[in-house]
Order: sequence, then C-alpha cells, then structure tokens
Amino acid sequence: MSELDDGTLVSTRIRLARNLEGYPFPAHLKGEKQAKEIIRLISSGFNRLDDFVLYYMDGISEWEANALKENHLISPALMERRRLSAALINEDRSVSVMINEEDHLREQCILGGLRLDAAYRKISAIDGKIGRSIKFAYDEQLGYLTACPTNLGTGLRASVMLFLPALTINGSIREVVRSISRLGLTVRGVYGEGSEAEGYMYQVSNEVTLGVSEDEIISQVDEVARKLRSLESAERQRLKSGKSRLEVMDKCMRAYGVITNCAVLSSGELIALAADVKLGACLGFIPIREVSAIDELVMRMRPYNINLSAGRDLSPGERDVYRAEFVSSYIKKIAGAR
Amino acid sequence: MSELDDGTLVSTRIRLARNLEGYPFPAHLKGEKQAKEIIRLISSGFNRLDDFVLYYMDGISEWEANALKENHLISPALMERRRLSAALINEDRSVSVMINEEDHLREQCILGGLRLDAAYRKISAIDGKIGRSIKFAYDEQLGYLTACPTNLGTGLRASVMLFLPALTINGSIREVVRSISRLGLTVRGVYGEGSEAEGYMYQVSNEVTLGVSEDEIISQVDEVARKLRSLESAERQRLKSGKSRLEVMDKCMRAYGVITNCAVLSSGELIALAADVKLGACLGFIPIREVSAIDELVMRMRPYNINLSAGRDLSPGERDVYRAEFVSSYIKKIAGAR
Repeated sequence: MSELDDGTLVSTRIRLARNLEGYPFPAHLKGEKQAKEIIRLISSGFNRLDDFVLYYMDGISEWEANALKENHLISPALMERRRLSAALINEDRSVSVMINEEDHLREQCILGGLRLDAAYRKISAIDGKIGRSIKFAYDEQLGYLTACPTNLGTGLRASVMLFLPALTINGSIREVVRSISRLGLTVRGVYGEGSEAEGYMYQVSNEVTLGVSEDEIISQVDEVARKLRSLESAERQRLKSGKSRLEVMDKCMRAYGVITNCAVLSSGELIALAADVKLGACLGFIPIREVSAIDELVMRMRPYNINLSAGRDLSPGERDVYRAEFVSSYIKKIAGAR
Repeated sequence: MSELDDGTLVSTRIRLARNLEGYPFPAHLKGEKQAKEIIRLISSGFNRLDDFVLYYMDGISEWEANALKENHLISPALMERRRLSAALINEDRSVSVMINEEDHLREQCILGGLRLDAAYRKISAIDGKIGRSIKFAYDEQLGYLTACPTNLGTGLRASVMLFLPALTINGSIREVVRSISRLGLTVRGVYGEGSEAEGYMYQVSNEVTLGVSEDEIISQVDEVARKLRSLESAERQRLKSGKSRLEVMDKCMRAYGVITNCAVLSSGELIALAADVKLGACLGFIPIREVSAIDELVMRMRPYNINLSAGRDLSPGERDVYRAEFVSSYIKKIAGAR
C-alpha cells in the first residue's frame, strides 16, 4: 500500500465495448421500440440480488443525469440520445454499464489507485453475466465488432489517471508524452485540452484494441503508469531539494492559504488550487497525509454534485460560496488546522 | 480615541522650510566649508539635554541612510548632497530637522493618526529653539524666504496620510480628488504614481503657503481629512452590506490566506496584501483590532529596515523570505490565530 501513497496513481478505468448480434448499431436503430428492446434484453440478466440500478436516461432529471456524468458513470454521448439510452450502475458506483451509447454496451469499472487487474476482473464478471443471456456480435478474425473500428478486437480501453505535478512544472512532461505515444499509447490532460494539463492530471490509455490480447494491453498500460510514477517521484525529489524548492513551496502554501480562506471558489479554480495543495502535501510542506482525500473533494465539489449535497438547484454564485465554505473547512480539517 | 480607530487617519506630518539670513540657499553654497558652518550653527542650539542626534550624511553608511529615508526621516534630496548635508533626529523619531536640503532647514514632525495641532506645536517648539541661536531669512511682505517660491510665506506643509479603500474600490476617489484640488489642496497616492493608489493610501496636503496663516492651513487640511474619513466611512457601510460584500470579503480573505501562508513576499506585494487585510479587519471580516499595527508592520518590512532588524545586509531574495516569515507569524498573532 505504501507504494501508492504518493498521490501519483489516482485511478484506474477499464472499459469494454460490446454489441448484440442481430441488431443494428445504436446510431442505426429502428426507433425507440428497438432501443427499449435492447435495454430490456440486457437488463433482464440482472435481478434483485444484484446491486445494480437501471436508469432510463429519459426517466431521470437533467440534474441527476448531469451528476452521473460528472462522476464519469455515464458519458455525454449517452445523454445526447436520452430517448434511447439507459445505464446500469452498481451500488458503490464502481461499475456502470451504458446501454445504446455508441455501442449497445459500454461496460466500465473505475477503481481508485492503479488496479488494472482488479478492475478488469470485476468488469469481466459483469461481461460474462451479460453474455450468458445475450449473444455478442463477434467475428473470429476481428474479435468483438464495434460501431467504430478503433474499438474492434478486444473492445478494451484500459486507462490510468495520474497526478504528475513535478514532470509538469519542470516541463519534461512533453518529452514523456512523445515517448509514450511511440509505444502506441495515448496521454492527455484530464482537465482542459491545453498543452499544460490543469490540475497536473493526465490519463494514459491504450490506442490499439485489435491484434493484441487483453493481458498485453493491461500489462503495457500498467508498466507505463509505473514508469511515469517513478519518473515523477525522481522529479519530486529534485523539486524538494533543488533551487526551485522555495518557489514551489511558496506556490503550494499560497494555494493552501487561498483555499482555506476564500469566500468564493469556482470549480475551475478549485481544480488548480487543490492540485497545488496536493503537491504541497506530497512534498511535505502541508501536513495532509491522505492525499487521495483531495481528489475526492474535487469530485464532490463539481456543480451537480454540489446540488445533490445541498439538496437543491443552487445558482452558480451560490455554488461558489457553498464550495468555498465546504472546501475551506474540509482542507483545514484534514491538515489538522482548527 | 474611538474616533480614530477605523484605520482611515494613518498619520500626520507638519513640515517647516527655513533659511538662514546672510547665506546663499544650499544649491548655491560656496563649497563644503560653508555647508559645515551652517550645520554647526544650527546644531549648536542643541545640547546633550536634548534628545536629538546629529547625523552627518557623509558620516553614516549607505545602509543607515536608506533606512532613515524609508522611515521618511530624511528625503532623497538630502541624500543626493551627502557631502553638504546633515539631519538632527530625536529619540522617538517623531521629529527630524534636515540641514542643507533644498532649504537650509526642513523641520518636520510625524505623528500617528490625525494630530495636526499636536505636530505643529511640537515642530514650532523646535523652530523657536533654533530661531533663538540663528536668524531666519524673513521678509515683512513675503514671510519666510525659501529656495522655491512654492514654499514662501509660512514655509508650512501640513499633510495627512489616509487609508481610503472603500472610496478607491467604488471609484469615487477620482471625483473626491477633483473637488479637493479645487480647494487648493493636493491629494496623491502614497505608493506609486498611478491613478489608483497602491495600498489605498493617499496624502492630502496644502498647496498654498503664502497669503494664509498657519492656523488657516492646518484647519483646512484637518477639515478635509475629517470629511474624507466620513465619506470613506459611509462607503464602507455600503461595501459591508451591499451586493459587493461577498466580492470584497473574498478579496480580503484571500489576501489574509496568502499573507499568513506564503514563503516568499516582496515589499510591493506586502503593501497590496496588507491593505486588503487591513480592509478586511476594518470591515469585521478578520479579527484584528489594532489596525494601525498593520501600517507599522509595512514600515518595518521595508528593505533597509529589514537589514536593520536582521543585523546584516540581506540579498533581495533573502529579504523576501525573511519578510514572508515575519509577516505571516505577526499577522497570525494579531489576528489571534495560532
């Protein structure tokens, strides 16, 4: 466990794309009736003993749907075709099965830390369960058939979210991204699409799904994530002791000062400040041990998640005040300040 | 006293310009010998019983001279003619008499708060004492003769330093400055010469020295200072309760967060942050009662004053670290934080 405590390996996501044999891909479905039939077929495999809830996208409020989207349990694409789509989500919200997204099935599992094997086992069990009641579109040569050819074969996307402040600050992230791309993997900033990732957050995932095995994909992503963690770790040592130590400490401590005192805090500013507070904690400047608590805080403070906590539809201005108050006392608490 | 506790009336300065009869103005002195003769003549009126110290400008280090300048005890002009100039400064540093500045004598008294009468009495006593041993250049028609005609007559400059955050933030300071100018008084930002005063600090002083009595000058400056204070006070009430309350609170609290947590702090940034912290204290957002302590802190944290406290010549980088540490713990202390 201690290996994972430096906050670098934030979370793991495994996603499988599947389609039903004998039905057109979702974009070509013949109206609502056929879409509902697919939803029924898939969800019929789940009974009351399973801890899954079926959400029809046209049966929940805009509010609920957006909160699910913020938590990455459903995708924007699923929301766009609300009349035709649904999602099965389990109780601890680690697994969601989107129905009639780009493919008939998008099965995903998200776990904290770097746990590709565990996430793959978990989603494979769900995949197997669904496969017992329906027949997947499968080709001996091409493997699982998908709406978009980039998902053919395994239908597997394995992703790891990483917190890479030191590599970002010293600029070496660019070179790192280039060399990872040459391995056939993709790295992108999680927040915003600029060259420098906001919040120092990056997602590494496989590009290729065809002609490789699930094990090969998972091993490769796992290996790259571990490599990135060790590069980041070395860079952090340099930040801690090098000539930029004071500058970085100042940046982190100012972020801590603002986040624990502000009266108004936007979602975007929270991402940036929380990242510097987390860096300060990782470097030992700020006495916060469980740095993953900061990641969870950022998730909980997204707009629709705040509405959910507050129990009502707050205006953006009200949310910024709610966020400032909540974040300020939460960070003070975990830092052991009064 | 309670009248002065809102931090608006920062300090009072009275300055008298005088010259000796029978000697050319300092700019036209015949060499060092004549300059030293004037210094001797003036200082001879002071004996060991007086709590004044005579500083020859060419007898003190660059370091000491700059610290005196930072504390407004000597002027940049006095430093420029170091070989010819001197200053008599009393123990509590409220009074300084500059010798061979633009005039042979520039006698000034600086007191905290709005205390024009007290400052004038104090400097008049010194002026009378000096006048007993030497003869001032005086003309029945023109009054005291000075190197620059703008000081003729009374030779008196009465100034008040004011902290006007609310009038600055709501922008009405511009109109206020215009109307004060029409009364023949000058208002200018204390830090920087931009349109918006850094640190919300302004100095009001008389423009005219000729054809008016000392009492008239002092009464007018006093009246304008009190008027400004009441305008500022009304504006603060509006800030506290109006729709900009949250925005102002956020600004002040962020300044407090940064000032109490930063690891590096420049002199210029301290002025800006301290002003917002002071505003926050004045509006009741930050639990600091003695807001004048913040003004004193800014003075003490000027570069040469820091060298003086540290007892050695710090580099600018070292000073910024020293300042951050000192200011952070000082502000926390007076705010009752740990």
